[in-house]
Amino acid sequence: MRQLRSLVTPERELRLSVEAVDTPPPGEREVLVRVEAAPVNPSDLGLLLAMADVSQAVAGGSLDDPTVTAPIPEPVMRSLAARVGEAMTVGNEGAGVVVAAGASPEAEALLGHKVGFIGGATYGEYCLASPRMCLQLPEGANAVDGASSFVNPLTALGMVETMRNEGHTGLVHTAAASNLGQMLNRICLADGVPLVNIVRRPEQARLLREQGAVHVCDSSESTFEVDLVTALKNTKATLAFDAVGGGTLAGQILNAMEAAIVAPDAPYSRYGSDVHKQVYVYGALDPRPIELRRRFGFAWGVGGWLLTPFLARTSGEDLVRLRQRVAAELTTTFASHYTDQISLREALDVETLQRYARQATGEKFLLRPQG
Amino acid sequence: MRQLRSLVTPERELRLSVEAVDTPPPGEREVLVRVEAAPVNPSDLGLLLAMADVSQAVAGGSLDDPTVTAPIPEPVMRSLAARVGEAMTVGNEGAGVVVAAGASPEAEALLGHKVGFIGGATYGEYCLASPRMCLQLPEGANAVDGASSFVNPLTALGMVETMRNEGHTGLVHTAAASNLGQMLNRICLADGVPLVNIVRRPEQARLLREQGAVHVCDSSESTFEVDLVTALKNTKATLAFDAVGGGTLAGQILNAMEAAIVAPDAPYSRYGSDVHKQVYVYGALDPRPIELRRRFGFAWGVGGWLLTPFLARTSGEDLVRLRQRVAAELTTTFASHYTDQISLREALDVETLQRYARQATGEKFLLRPQG
Repeated sequence: MRQLRSLVTPERELRLSVEAVDTPPPGEREVLVRVEAAPVNPSDLGLLLAMADVSQAVAGGSLDDPTVTAPIPEPVMRSLAARVGEAMTVGNEGAGVVVAAGASPEAEALLGHKVGFIGGATYGEYCLASPRMCLQLPEGANAVDGASSFVNPLTALGMVETMRNEGHTGLVHTAAASNLGQMLNRICLADGVPLVNIVRRPEQARLLREQGAVHVCDSSESTFEVDLVTALKNTKATLAFDAVGGGTLAGQILNAMEAAIVAPDAPYSRYGSDVHKQVYVYGALDPRPIELRRRFGFAWGVGGWLLTPFLARTSGEDLVRLRQRVAAELTTTFASHYTDQISLREALDVETLQRYARQATGEKFLLRPQG
Repeated sequence: MRQLRSLVTPERELRLSVEAVDTPPPGEREVLVRVEAAPVNPSDLGLLLAMADVSQAVAGGSLDDPTVTAPIPEPVMRSLAARVGEAMTVGNEGAGVVVAAGASPEAEALLGHKVGFIGGATYGEYCLASPRMCLQLPEGANAVDGASSFVNPLTALGMVETMRNEGHTGLVHTAAASNLGQMLNRICLADGVPLVNIVRRPEQARLLREQGAVHVCDSSESTFEVDLVTALKNTKATLAFDAVGGGTLAGQILNAMEAAIVAPDAPYSRYGSDVHKQVYVYGALDPRPIELRRRFGFAWGVGGWLLTPFLARTSGEDLVRLRQRVAAELTTTFASHYTDQISLREALDVETLQRYARQATGEKFLLRPQG
């Protein structure tokens, strides 16, 4: 089988290749999926591209065995030390058919079925998966429908679940025009959860408003901070999920939440309001440090949030409920749209790589490993 | 009665004065304390001095009615907007005798007794307090012993309680040579809790080591980051309490915790370790923004921590246990030492003010409102 690999060399070079490797047999509690489609998500690009300077990407290798290389900036290398020299598999999720299964009942039950799944190596012709991390696709759904049925849907649902579990009643979301953001907007509209969408450009604001979003704040507008306070007053949102994770945005959100909570004529308190304000950082679109300018008192938190630990904290019963919803609404609430479909080999094409590396709004790539 | 007041004027001026005001009668669930001693803590100075430039302080008023004024820097004024024009009372805690009590049994029970207490206006001859916020001093203790019996002891105990409640097994403390820090060191030594003390100067490191501290890291040393990782490996501390709250220190602690957790030969994970690392910010010694350089994965949190919400979360039973410990160890574990005792009027003396405003290590002022 062929499998995409990402290598960081000691010479500060990223090298992508397609390797011929043995197809792995499933263990007792595993299934083997023939991968038909896998999305290119920002979380995949972090591992795939290792923050290399792809504007300097160069094609190499042979016709039969092409590679692409790109230099990695010096300051970035420190955070990559642990992966130097290891040609890593890539691809968080995908969809395909279970072609082999271990002896355990959960694994056997999936044999022959079409699934969306998390695998960690979905950028290859075959991939192992745990049955717990598989979502059996509903009748009639194909691999393209199911390719993004795990990470984004369960992340978006996980945000709403976290809101409820931690006693908040409204949400803020940054980079809100992303596929994930649009999904969250649909969930919040359906469930009546007040949502403040923060975007970075007017066309993103338009796109969300066309999809029914009520509160949209554009950080490129001069009125952004005032708009944000108004939206927070209207929604009473005290929990934000932030994909940006660098610069001043997380702190701006906390300050705006505090400004929305404290009445203008309230007596002065040097400790701020006693309403807890929380930002969970789940991405790193901006590699700069997080900068918090404290005008938000002492009832606040900023922290990391990831899907996998959320799933680990969630009861089996709740997980079934969430997965059933994803299956039932796969082509509506949880639909993803792709602008480009590429093969494993096309993923190594310099121009194509530079396009998907941009993560431009409205552009979304789907890898077809069998192609 | 005389009472110290702190006023911020619209002209960006801080004005301190001693006002003659009516002695307030206690409500049903209140007591009136004749204040004999009140400490000057960093948390008091924030309110008292409003971040004014005290190097430019000027004496004013009359002989009978002295004042002191100092200019407030422009950038600071924004955060003070809510207190402009209001001559605020000052003083978080103190000790004295309950001279009047409301009709409720809890209040009446304290009449005639010597208490340490939280009041919010202890820089005055008399102050109201809630019985819940009073600690009856043990036989033989005087007001100087009891002046700091509430905030620092319960804050230090609250840090250890929080550590246990949230599943950590060791602590990091910044500004660790403070009165509070020395107290925490004594508690941790007594309770066998591994503690990493972070200080900013060699003499502070010496002071803590003389008091038996095992792990002391001096941020002025060139080896600080390496020392910190070593101390964190030895203590397995994953929770820090940070009084500094500005600059890069909180992020350095998280990065050092992550480096101590992840073995050098561990496989690369772009999400970092799954061990939760937490920093609680309980002060603001450094007014700069908090800057987090993320090399600590996604299992992390930074948040505000304050004594009052901690006490509100704590069960009555646990509170009794904590207060009994403070009373029993008032002159040992929880002893505070003062280098200067000043009257209300002396608090307005320009030179004296400039001295207590410095918050120098080893210097600690006690206000004697009856003097």
